[in-house]
Amino acid sequence: MRVIVDAMGSDHAPEAQVEGALRALDSHQSLTILLAGPKGCLEAELRKHGAGTGDRLGILDAPQVIAPEEEPVQAIRSKKESSMVRSLRELGRGEAAAAVSAGNTGALLAGSLFICGRIRGVRRPALATVMPTLAGDGMLFLDLGASVDSRAGDLVQHAVMGAVYAREVMNRQVPRVALLNVGEERQKGNSLLREAHELLSEREDGDLEFVGNVEGRDLFQGDLDVVVADGFVGNVTLKVIEGTARALMDMIRSEIDGNLRHQLGGALLRPAFRSVYRRMDYTEYGGAPLLGLREAVIKCHGSSNARAVQNGIGQALFMAQRQVPQIIGSHLDRGAGDTSE
Amino acid sequence: MRVIVDAMGSDHAPEAQVEGALRALDSHQSLTILLAGPKGCLEAELRKHGAGTGDRLGILDAPQVIAPEEEPVQAIRSKKESSMVRSLRELGRGEAAAAVSAGNTGALLAGSLFICGRIRGVRRPALATVMPTLAGDGMLFLDLGASVDSRAGDLVQHAVMGAVYAREVMNRQVPRVALLNVGEERQKGNSLLREAHELLSEREDGDLEFVGNVEGRDLFQGDLDVVVADGFVGNVTLKVIEGTARALMDMIRSEIDGNLRHQLGGALLRPAFRSVYRRMDYTEYGGAPLLGLREAVIKCHGSSNARAVQNGIGQALFMAQRQVPQIIGSHLDRGAGDTSE
Repeated sequence: MRVIVDAMGSDHAPEAQVEGALRALDSHQSLTILLAGPKGCLEAELRKHGAGTGDRLGILDAPQVIAPEEEPVQAIRSKKESSMVRSLRELGRGEAAAAVSAGNTGALLAGSLFICGRIRGVRRPALATVMPTLAGDGMLFLDLGASVDSRAGDLVQHAVMGAVYAREVMNRQVPRVALLNVGEERQKGNSLLREAHELLSEREDGDLEFVGNVEGRDLFQGDLDVVVADGFVGNVTLKVIEGTARALMDMIRSEIDGNLRHQLGGALLRPAFRSVYRRMDYTEYGGAPLLGLREAVIKCHGSSNARAVQNGIGQALFMAQRQVPQIIGSHLDRGAGDTSE
Repeated sequence: MRVIVDAMGSDHAPEAQVEGALRALDSHQSLTILLAGPKGCLEAELRKHGAGTGDRLGILDAPQVIAPEEEPVQAIRSKKESSMVRSLRELGRGEAAAAVSAGNTGALLAGSLFICGRIRGVRRPALATVMPTLAGDGMLFLDLGASVDSRAGDLVQHAVMGAVYAREVMNRQVPRVALLNVGEERQKGNSLLREAHELLSEREDGDLEFVGNVEGRDLFQGDLDVVVADGFVGNVTLKVIEGTARALMDMIRSEIDGNLRHQLGGALLRPAFRSVYRRMDYTEYGGAPLLGLREAVIKCHGSSNARAVQNGIGQALFMAQRQVPQIIGSHLDRGAGDTSE
């Protein structure tokens, strides 16, 4: 199965992409990779690893690069020869089963929509991520900002799409799905959440178990498989988690620095802190799947290292093998989250 | 100046309220307090401290108690003789300068609105809290959920009300105000945020400095005085911060427990952890001011101890002394955040 890797446009591109691709080829025998980017540059990078193109590794020459700060729609329209646009065109033509990119998120979203298209019946795609939890193996959280100004039907569709991903890729039989809200009771929240709660309660498909609302303070308990929020709230939440974790670690560090006893304690605890960091570290969890598109697309973090790219490629491969887009399509054909309200 | 303390309806009521009131009387010479609750019960609690009623401490007999889980509007309507309703009626009649309650948040909000009323021109009141920051003395964050389904004009009013509080109570000359958003650029976010950004950019009053959008990951830097969010997003954010901090500390604790070296490190670092806890601890920062009401009302956390109540009373006193409601009224008379759009 072939995965396209957009090798440009992120903090450590193309080094991380090339090394990540080589590592992924080692770990997945059924995998072939097409690296998209300026040919000479990618060949030089491959040579550093004593590698070259061959049966399992090809190069898709793309001289242009979309930068992280470019205006997404404008970038997609004007840079037809960019590694991202060429990757998506190749994917849309069926030349690969999945694509991975660590480039401009907005451009990847817009480009995937324009070039690959939405699954029939999906009003808004969603960007999802696997978040670490205290117990269990993490949960899928969406939408991270692919759509803002959501309607209730969008949240229902996102719940269904998230549940398909959780079942097929994360191995959760009947995924437990909740809405992120300000209280557990069904009448809590704004009009969007109250309506989504009602629609999800009325669903009778056995494809997911809707367990109601979850509050932010219980998000990490690990008893949920999928948590759904509007893209605005989801994006704010993700960044607040990042900000809080960083602020807390900074506070602990500044306490340690000021005092000899604390410095000794800090030194003894270093492996413990490192292990917590690792549990919170996105690179362990691969990238963020884009759900609702006709094709399997994985967005890796802009600061991805080789390990994160390797994991993202494995995830893309698995998402395509399990036919996540096709299964989402078959679920939404049954009318889940019909947004004709 | 007289402050009414609703002594009932929270986790440690009335012990925390009575002890907090006695402590506050010690620290503020200009303060008198009226404790609202069942007379016999409050007198018995006072006796434990060798205290009784007198010139500076009175009891407002109120036999009923509103529980934390009661439906707010129903509770306010049916329990006319509750400590909360009687407190607010006394406040509304001008018998005190401010009120403090650690009871049912929704009931306090609804009761304050019905009984004390909104400031002329305010469409939605807001609940605000002082959050700890890495540098500086914290920032005011609002709305925590007093209003959901906000309009852009509400966010503008909340910015103005927050700035008044920051200037008068937190001593920030020209408060730096930001909107919580998913990106820094002005076109980021949903339609609500884009419109609020435009309205705030167009304001020409020198009463606050609008600095644009802030992302969740930069919330704790300490370079802002006021951060404004819609009540739904604000409430989710507050609980996500709490959940993240708790999850991170739990992860560190579970690492420490598993290993002797880590246990030693943890023991050495205990004072450092305690100091971080204290910095994150709401009891240090008093309660949450309700802004947009005709009277000064402070909501203390439902699990408030005596120290939190004491700080909440001091805050209520200061809010009344600095005439925060009156100043908000004079600002909004000038038409800030006119919601006639």
